Amino acid sequence: MISVDPDRFLADLHRLQSFGAANPGLGSGKGVVRPAYSDPDIAARRWLAGRMEEAGLAPWFDPVGNLFGLADAERGMLLGSHSDTQPEGGWLDGALGVIAGLEIARAARAAGRQDLSVVSFQDEEGRFGVTTGSAIWSGQLPLNEADSLTSPDGESFAAARQRMADLAGDWIAPGRFAGFLEMHIEQGPWLDRAGEAVGVVEAIVGIRDMTITFKGQQNHAGTTPMAGRRDAFQALAAFNAAIAERFANVVTPQTVWTIGHVALHPGAHSVVPGRAAFSMQWRDSDTDRLARMERIIRDTADEIARARGMTVDLGRMLGLDPVAMAPGIVEACAAAAEEAVPGRWRRMPSGALHDATNAARHMPVGMLFVPSKGGISHDFAEDTDEADLVRGLQVMAAAVDRLGPGPL
Amino acid sequence: MISVDPDRFLADLHRLQSFGAANPGLGSGKGVVRPAYSDPDIAARRWLAGRMEEAGLAPWFDPVGNLFGLADAERGMLLGSHSDTQPEGGWLDGALGVIAGLEIARAARAAGRQDLSVVSFQDEEGRFGVTTGSAIWSGQLPLNEADSLTSPDGESFAAARQRMADLAGDWIAPGRFAGFLEMHIEQGPWLDRAGEAVGVVEAIVGIRDMTITFKGQQNHAGTTPMAGRRDAFQALAAFNAAIAERFANVVTPQTVWTIGHVALHPGAHSVVPGRAAFSMQWRDSDTDRLARMERIIRDTADEIARARGMTVDLGRMLGLDPVAMAPGIVEACAAAAEEAVPGRWRRMPSGALHDATNAARHMPVGMLFVPSKGGISHDFAEDTDEADLVRGLQVMAAAVDRLGPGPL
Repeated sequence: MISVDPDRFLADLHRLQSFGAANPGLGSGKGVVRPAYSDPDIAARRWLAGRMEEAGLAPWFDPVGNLFGLADAERGMLLGSHSDTQPEGGWLDGALGVIAGLEIARAARAAGRQDLSVVSFQDEEGRFGVTTGSAIWSGQLPLNEADSLTSPDGESFAAARQRMADLAGDWIAPGRFAGFLEMHIEQGPWLDRAGEAVGVVEAIVGIRDMTITFKGQQNHAGTTPMAGRRDAFQALAAFNAAIAERFANVVTPQTVWTIGHVALHPGAHSVVPGRAAFSMQWRDSDTDRLARMERIIRDTADEIARARGMTVDLGRMLGLDPVAMAPGIVEACAAAAEEAVPGRWRRMPSGALHDATNAARHMPVGMLFVPSKGGISHDFAEDTDEADLVRGLQVMAAAVDRLGPGPL
Repeated sequence: MISVDPDRFLADLHRLQSFGAANPGLGSGKGVVRPAYSDPDIAARRWLAGRMEEAGLAPWFDPVGNLFGLADAERGMLLGSHSDTQPEGGWLDGALGVIAGLEIARAARAAGRQDLSVVSFQDEEGRFGVTTGSAIWSGQLPLNEADSLTSPDGESFAAARQRMADLAGDWIAPGRFAGFLEMHIEQGPWLDRAGEAVGVVEAIVGIRDMTITFKGQQNHAGTTPMAGRRDAFQALAAFNAAIAERFANVVTPQTVWTIGHVALHPGAHSVVPGRAAFSMQWRDSDTDRLARMERIIRDTADEIARARGMTVDLGRMLGLDPVAMAPGIVEACAAAAEEAVPGRWRRMPSGALHDATNAARHMPVGMLFVPSKGGISHDFAEDTDEADLVRGLQVMAAAVDRLGPGPL
């Protein structure tokens, strides 16, 4: 029976917040500025390594700065998340999962279990790639490819990880771990809105993403009559309206789609735009549904282009398939949740990517969510009641208890 | 009776095309690259000054490079347009009006009329401002303001006009001229589509232009449900659809409106856009209609923002009022057109701005259009049948005949 210490857990969480804490005098609350490989990020990882050592775990940095706290046992579960933040991030995104993992492994050791390891992956927030550190660790992203990635401020990944070179040891083989369990804030509104305490993640949604370009006829905005225009922005607007209508019969309340980037050419007040390039991204936990949406997108784009005497270019589609959580872990979490907060938890998909996506290439994975106040994340205002944080920790500990030290 | 020489007119027009002629080997046809103050532009103006002198006119450059060919008479009409082009322009836009004016003044002198002056305004195409040369000449744009304008390639107007400093004399007072008549290609499809030879312009349409910004809530594109989003792009799309519907009862086939520039913030595939700033421009020849459209735009933007829990910022409105052509000049042109091409001409508005807009601050103005093949302009492919060019010249000469040398 793992008996966690809520005070020690919260104290560690607050201490981690102090690395890169945004100036609270400026109304930034518990906000944190601790992007991957920044001085505060490296300092936080050094402190975390010390806390792991104090807990009886062997701290270990791999070549890209992923920090492991390794158990003595040859094989066991890995618990954790990431401790880097967005450029303007909250105090819980990633940090919660790392400190929860640390507290559970620490408490488990006190109860005689020496099989639980802890991790803080590097650059989950994607200064360079997408969940960069765990992507490289899992073999999803080759290191030489990663080294040539560049951050928005112009630093190469190779140069960034060099800043932690004095700490770096060899790679930790994923095969060493029997499973991965990650606690995280929901970053969405569902739990908070329903007054629920815990979300048991069943799948991390899949993502499809493509850039679509309508090509019409650039023209003088004064002399070209409306009826004779082949206005690429108008094609985009018609496409946007048509897919919303056609998606209605296909989607669930969890399905999302987004046009987040638009570039008109030539982009002048007095010129009918001849070209509109825009991003189309859609997410769902069901691969079939993603494919049905893709069909609608392709057909609608073609129809609209044809009807307007225009052409459309559908760019290469980025595809990340949904990742199912391991049924054994899901059920252990569900049973623990029902015991701790009966009727006040739900099974749900994760709309965001997490390190668990990459870990799933090698082992059974699971995730537990706690509520995000107002659904806000990636913002200084991100927060969760401390009672909910502790409850999440206790549910996770109980799930780890149920799973036991054996093979999953 | 002014008797123009079609061959001399066409020869001059082709000679002017040779200054900055785009490489015809690259399929650019009669295309021209002769932006204001470029070497080809200055060379073309030196050649034009020579042709004016040969025609018995006194060539005169003002401080910004507007080139006048001045008649002997104290007072008389001014004919012309501009000889600078778009970065990738056609051979007729502006050039036609300058050479037509030159031919008519030249032919008139041979017939004993010495009252007609000619002009090629500078930077009508707006490397710097909007119809820059005639705007400064007319007092619409103060010279010190113009000097601080910068071209897209980073040159200041002050530096650009310095390149013609060796040619520059003093200003030519607009009060010297009794009226202004400008022949131009239509740059739209109406005449070409109807098989008509001449358009008698009754008004240059007014323009309203503002930047509108919807502000919603920037959010994670994976974890934010569709129903909870305050997506600024979706507000823009809804606005675009709603104004088109509401305009339907207000507009004429000549009314136009354009969203030519869109900027989403932060403009990322994975982020629900929290801000959408876009250009809204509308044009019509009736001030009341422009105002009714403005009311619809403001009301619709407010309604859409309110309904979506967002805010909207309506930027400063640029307003250029419609400019009516002088009735005396319109009727002289109409009578000349009806005589030359009975039933094959129309009265029409100009959807584009022209130098005549600025001249109208000081004198009665008129404009004559000839067809643009396919309505194409501001493009290498811009063209007009030479028979139509000559017919336009003859109608303009006949109109100048009817107006006579006296006060308008």
